[in-house]
Order: sequence, then C-alpha cells, then structure tokens
Amino acid sequence: MDVIDELDQRKRKVEDRIDQIFDGDRDHPLWNSMAYYPRAGGKKLRPFLVMITTGAFDKSEEVALPYATALELVHNFTLIHDDIMDKDEMRRGKATLHKRIGEAHAINAGDGLFALAFKILSNTEVEDEKLRLLLEELSTSVVKVAEGQEEDISFEETYDITEEEFLDMIEKKTSYLFRAAARGGAIIGGGDEEEIRSMGEYARKMGVAFQIQDDYLDLVGDENKIGKDVGSDIKEGKRTLMVINALSELPEQKRKRLIEILEKEDNTTEEIRKALGLIEDAKAIQHSKDLAHEYAEEAKSELEILPDGKYKRMLEEIVDFMISREK
Amino acid sequence: MDVIDELDQRKRKVEDRIDQIFDGDRDHPLWNSMAYYPRAGGKKLRPFLVMITTGAFDKSEEVALPYATALELVHNFTLIHDDIMDKDEMRRGKATLHKRIGEAHAINAGDGLFALAFKILSNTEVEDEKLRLLLEELSTSVVKVAEGQEEDISFEETYDITEEEFLDMIEKKTSYLFRAAARGGAIIGGGDEEEIRSMGEYARKMGVAFQIQDDYLDLVGDENKIGKDVGSDIKEGKRTLMVINALSELPEQKRKRLIEILEKEDNTTEEIRKALGLIEDAKAIQHSKDLAHEYAEEAKSELEILPDGKYKRMLEEIVDFMISREK
Repeated sequence: MDVIDELDQRKRKVEDRIDQIFDGDRDHPLWNSMAYYPRAGGKKLRPFLVMITTGAFDKSEEVALPYATALELVHNFTLIHDDIMDKDEMRRGKATLHKRIGEAHAINAGDGLFALAFKILSNTEVEDEKLRLLLEELSTSVVKVAEGQEEDISFEETYDITEEEFLDMIEKKTSYLFRAAARGGAIIGGGDEEEIRSMGEYARKMGVAFQIQDDYLDLVGDENKIGKDVGSDIKEGKRTLMVINALSELPEQKRKRLIEILEKEDNTTEEIRKALGLIEDAKAIQHSKDLAHEYAEEAKSELEILPDGKYKRMLEEIVDFMISREK
Repeated sequence: MDVIDELDQRKRKVEDRIDQIFDGDRDHPLWNSMAYYPRAGGKKLRPFLVMITTGAFDKSEEVALPYATALELVHNFTLIHDDIMDKDEMRRGKATLHKRIGEAHAINAGDGLFALAFKILSNTEVEDEKLRLLLEELSTSVVKVAEGQEEDISFEETYDITEEEFLDMIEKKTSYLFRAAARGGAIIGGGDEEEIRSMGEYARKMGVAFQIQDDYLDLVGDENKIGKDVGSDIKEGKRTLMVINALSELPEQKRKRLIEILEKEDNTTEEIRKALGLIEDAKAIQHSKDLAHEYAEEAKSELEILPDGKYKRMLEEIVDFMISREK
C-alpha cells in the first residue's frame, strides 16, 4: 500500500470522528456553521501526521485520534478566519463560510470551532501529564500561527520582504500546526525529549516545503485539481516565495512591471501569463522548487532517530508527496 | 474592608500578572494588539470569582491566579470579536481594537489572545487531573458563549423574542464565563461534585443578574461612569430584557413607535428619551430590576453549601454589588 492509500485510510477515520462530533442533536445553527469546513473535504494531513508519529513510537494510532481530530478542527478554524481576513470567496471548490453566512456569523463559528477543539482535547484518553503537554503544544502553536498571520497581513503593505522574513512567516503560519501534530504524536507515543524535538523539526521543515508547493500550485497548477483559479495569488497581489525571489532578482524595469500587475485589482489572463513569464525570467520557480527540495531532505534527515520500518517509511514518503503533489 | 476593596486588591494582582505576560521582549506587533483590552481596565470580576471561590474551599488564592488570568484573557478575546461583530466603536472610553488597527488585525489578535489563555492554563500549577477539568470548563464555556453570541446576532433580525429565549441567550453569552470562574475555583479548591455544581449555579444566576444590570445602566446610567453614551443600545436597536418586555406589554401603537425608533439608524436624543418613556410606560424597567433581584437571591441561596466566614460573605456581597453598581 502506498502512502496515499495510508493517508486515505486515516482520513476516513478522522472524517468518521468529525461526523460523530457534528451528528445527532446538534441542531443549533452555530453547529451547522462550525461543521461546514471540517466536512468539506481536505487532505487531513495534520491528523495523519499525529497518527503516524504516534505509531512510530509503538503506540496504537487509535489513542491519537482525539488529538488528531482536535488539531484538524484548529486548522479549520484558522481557515475560516483567514478567509475573512483575506476576503477570499472560494475554498475547496465551494463558497467560503463568510460568503455564505456573513462575516459576523463566520467569525463566531471560527471561535466556536477553536473552543470545541480544546473541549475534544480535554476528553483525550491519555495520561493527565501528557494532556498537559498536548495542551501546551496546541495552544503555543496557535499563538505562533497568529504571529505568522500578523506578519502575512503586514506583508501586503510592502514589497521589501527578504526571503528570510518570508520563510520565518510561513514557519509560523503553516509549519507550527504540522509541528504540533508530530510533536503531539511523539508525546502520545511516549517519545523522550530528544525524540519529541526531532519530530518537531521534521514537521517544521516539512511544513515549509508544503507551503512552497502550495504557492507553486496556485501559479502553475491544474485548476480542475486545485479547486480554485490558477494565478489567484497574482490577482490578490500575494507575496509568495516565488514573487519575493523574482522581485529581488529582476532588473528594475521588469520588477516594476511585476509590481504593477500585483497591485492591479482585477488581472486579465494575459496579465497573469505576463507575471508568470517574469517570474520564470527570474528563475524564481526553479529556485522555489530547489528550496522546497532542500527543506524536504532536511526534514527526512530528522527521521534518523526512528527505527526502520513501516512508520518511518510513511513519514519519509509523505514528505515526498508534499512536494510532488498536484493538488 | 468592603467587597469593593477586596475586588480592587485582586484586580491589582491580575493586572500585575497581565503586565508580566505582555512585558519584556514581546515586541511583536501581534502582542501589542493582544494587550490592548486586557490593559485597558475593566473590573476583573471573573478573576475575582475564581480567586474567592478557591479561597472559600480553604485553598490559597494564589494557586488560582493563572486560571483566573486565563479566564480574563478569554473574556477579553470575546470582547474583541464581539466589538467587530457588533460594529461597536467605543469600549472602556477608548476606540475599539478594530477601529484602531482594522478588522483583519483585530480578528487575528483575538485569536492570539484566545490561544494565549490556553497556554497560560497549561502552565497552571495544579495537579494534572485538575488541569484536565479546568480545560474542560474553559473550553465548554466558550462553545456556549459562541452559541449565545450566535443567538444574539440572530435576534437582530426579529422582534419576536420571548423572555425565555432572551434569558437563555444571556445565560450562554454572559453567564457561562462566570460559571467557568466559580466552578474552576471550586475545582482548584478541591470541592466535590455537589460543591462544584452549586458554585456553578450560583455564578450562572449571578451572571444573568449582572447582564440585566448592564443593559439597565446603558439605558438609564450616568455617561461619565459607564464610559459610553447612554442609550447606545437603543441607537443600535439592541434587544435587551427591557425592550423585549416592553414590546410584549405595550399596546399596538406604542409598540410600533418603539420599533420605529429601534429600527432607525441614527437616533436623536429626543427619540432616545421617547423610547425610554415607552419602556417606562410598559413598566419594563421595574420588571427588569425585579428579575435581576430574583436571580441575585437565587444565586445567594446556592451559597448555603459553604461554611460561614469571610469568603462566603464576599461571594454574597459581590452579588449585591452586581445589581446595584452604577458602572
């Protein structure tokens, strides 16, 4: 069985758990709104990481399911609020929550989902002292996600962003939840301090590679696969690694032209193609791909601490999947 | 020493703790935004309840300080998001956070503050099994607050709200954090199940009385004391107990007139005075005062479970304060 099948298998378990949470007598309108993103698909990568890391430490994956689910709900809460902050209209091929029910209701549904995640965490059947560590992981990571989001919003006002600043931002905004997943799995599995640290570093580096690939797909991916318009980041003037790298490498005239397109509200297909050409001129796509590969290799090297076997192999393969995926 | 002095004493302790959290090397812009409400004053009623309830069970109040602070931060996070949802411009005599830094930054600062509260909770020096219970209290209560907020937002679209529906909404939106305060204190203090339950009921009923008084002050309070315009609820067309009661008691013509004023965007002082007159005609202010008193008495009766002494007396007196306060 390849890693995609393994991923799908855990995905179904998490979806079942999510169904249990939202089924039954949850007829309050808040609960319908809270369920909208968790039930709209998604790869469930973070829960997978929790479960496989737990398994890698010889503990039953089932024990990790509540924490895995809590983390997925936290991820979905950040998506709800991010979509409001970014004024995005589409997510996973459907209208974003705030487009559907309005901003006030959507802010509130995000808050409810965040709180629900911690409630599920409180019911996790792990030893009380491990619960304390999991609580620390989850809460610390969301503070970091908020720091990263703050930096990301601020980037919208400037083109003077160094690659280092950008990578620092996505480490916080994206990597920290992956980190909380792998560290959490190691905690549940009974890993020692050094093992928890290694798993955290593994996931942190993988998270950066994941985000670079995400931005890559937005620019050159297949619309039918990614579920949104290709080039939407250019339309929205979003700073991605490729854009930042191109801006630093392009000669003045071309740099100005790229900024013009990024600044413009509604870009034509022709303009998006032009921007893509400029980014290619700067060799920024290749640079971005190279960097994703570097992070992926560094991530995998952190796995040396684990014994060879099925779980280690899955953790290696999921990294390769993250930088080669087409959606 | 009367209960106000006791309240002030604990307030200073919580403020010191909040200063410690936000001082030092917290130079990230997110942290400045997160600190804005917690440092802008407020009575710190919820932390007081945590500490006094803990003391009532013969445990040192100091042990309760982290949970008390976490709860205060949760309260402040709800204020940040509520102000965005309600489009409020003033809070505690200053501009609301989103008016100051924009909605996207403010949504994110609220999220960060919420996460920070759980991080502080994870560092609470109580036994691990008590931490699990505190986590459950805090997370459950915020899910309920979100349910209450959802109902409150929906009330804006109708005048057909029964008193029962209204009281159910404020129990969730307001009382649940008071409940989490008193139950948390009882848990930290080592109370048994029945004692935790009684303390929760005490605080739940007190919370309703508190909210009724809050709405009363908005209508007939002293502007210099409450830090915002008197009658702002009328301007905003907010459904309060007094409004709901008046709408159900007034004859058709007067009812229509009151709804007209509530619906109008910018009310004159004359219109607000007219609305107040209509509400008085319906005897709704007296009804509201009576109900607050009933809830306060019921709250105090839950304290029978406690031994007589300083702490029980403070818990009684804080209820009286809540329904007699002028700000």
